[in-house]
Amino acid sequence: MKIELKSRYKMFGGSQEVYKHESQVNNAPMAFAVYLPPQIKDKKLPVLYWLSGLTCTEENFVIKAGAQRMAAELGIVIVTMDTSARDTGIKGEDDHYAFGSGAGFYVNATVDKWSKHYNMYDYVSKELPKIIQTNFNVNQNKSIIGHSMGGHGALIIALTNPKQYKSVSAFSPIVAPTQASWGQVIFKGYLGEDKSTWLAYDTCELIKTAKEKLPLLVDVGSDDEYLQDQLKPELLQKACEENNHPLNLRMQAGYDHSYYFIATFIDEHLQYHAEYLNS
Amino acid sequence: MKIELKSRYKMFGGSQEVYKHESQVNNAPMAFAVYLPPQIKDKKLPVLYWLSGLTCTEENFVIKAGAQRMAAELGIVIVTMDTSARDTGIKGEDDHYAFGSGAGFYVNATVDKWSKHYNMYDYVSKELPKIIQTNFNVNQNKSIIGHSMGGHGALIIALTNPKQYKSVSAFSPIVAPTQASWGQVIFKGYLGEDKSTWLAYDTCELIKTAKEKLPLLVDVGSDDEYLQDQLKPELLQKACEENNHPLNLRMQAGYDHSYYFIATFIDEHLQYHAEYLNS
Repeated sequence: MKIELKSRYKMFGGSQEVYKHESQVNNAPMAFAVYLPPQIKDKKLPVLYWLSGLTCTEENFVIKAGAQRMAAELGIVIVTMDTSARDTGIKGEDDHYAFGSGAGFYVNATVDKWSKHYNMYDYVSKELPKIIQTNFNVNQNKSIIGHSMGGHGALIIALTNPKQYKSVSAFSPIVAPTQASWGQVIFKGYLGEDKSTWLAYDTCELIKTAKEKLPLLVDVGSDDEYLQDQLKPELLQKACEENNHPLNLRMQAGYDHSYYFIATFIDEHLQYHAEYLNS
Repeated sequence: MKIELKSRYKMFGGSQEVYKHESQVNNAPMAFAVYLPPQIKDKKLPVLYWLSGLTCTEENFVIKAGAQRMAAELGIVIVTMDTSARDTGIKGEDDHYAFGSGAGFYVNATVDKWSKHYNMYDYVSKELPKIIQTNFNVNQNKSIIGHSMGGHGALIIALTNPKQYKSVSAFSPIVAPTQASWGQVIFKGYLGEDKSTWLAYDTCELIKTAKEKLPLLVDVGSDDEYLQDQLKPELLQKACEENNHPLNLRMQAGYDHSYYFIATFIDEHLQYHAEYLNS
């Protein structure tokens, strides 16, 4: 698995880099970004995977979240990735911001039209960690975090791979996509009409059967414009209460869905993950 | 002078806002952004003016520099502004990234074609401070900082208005624009062929006649792609040495011209300005 360096910038004594490579699970080129703290020259470091929301590429978090300062201080590698394959030639791929390119939704598509190129679940949980492990001076400790669609991705990937991740957290996650329009459109398109197949990608459903009860840290802005229609954090609270799943759900007064919200609390999330990653 | 709120986001307990207004000196609509720390509810705060580089709007610093965290901690308002008037109808205004729109260069144009709309020196040093003073809960203490073209702007505005600013600093400034191609093209276009008129906007020239010796803090990346052709920090060092002007010029090894460089050292600059602004 060859990776090609596209850009490299010195930042907080470390290095902010972007790579492209041929993804085997997505049968297409994919891009990821990696922040390498200065300590990586001397020892293997743990990795935090950041999953972005609809329309984002590997770049949004890198530019907007202001996470590298604390990552350098804590000695944590941060990996971010594009939110889908792009320019695959699938007809209509770019027609809507919440479907197709930029909207991989961290699932493995089963509908023929999408199944060759839209397998972000395998990409994030299997292929990319192998690439990072092979190409950078990292240890085995991994955690996962994301925002909105990426908060959903982080939660479902952690809940279905609890041994693989030390910790998980999310900003503004879509916790019950089978009950919200973004998720319903996505699942119908990528997975087909049989709704029973959708449940494997629904956090509130996965909570019901989770054997390893990985604690969840979740921040949601009280003024988030998608709060009621798409995010529905009250459903996560209910599912966790009913199934004794540990949840720290923090409703942050006055914050919205933007990266300004993420930037405000990203340091706390990094410190949270560092306690697991460095122990 | 009426200002119109365009956006408002909660961030680090304070508020990141963008306004539009009719500029009298530029005879055109202008946009500025302001970060209001949480302390502003209780007391008047000092203001740091950030001047951006070529092609930037009021948004680049807000999104990329990660400055709001420290501004909230220190209780400093940060104001950023667009780098020129735009859509003024001047023919060829958008033809080149380093001339016309996005390239106001913080001068007052005297050539007829540009003089009605390209007066960023007066906008930043006179009109905008009045607007901020009138509309926000700020005190009289002001400092100024910028990057590249905006580093040039911060230095020339501070050197020619030393009583108005408590402190000045710059990232990667163009310190001798009369000796570099970006500046020469700009000055010829906005000021005309008479090079003696250019000197009023050249930091190294202003150092020769500066009566109040406001100390300069300047960071430049050793791997900056514009180091030799446009920035020429060695000329600033020479001018300051020859004229006993206090200068802390820090060549930062391995850093380039990007916002990744700015983000790395912005906290140190904010702390530097806070010592002047809060004393």
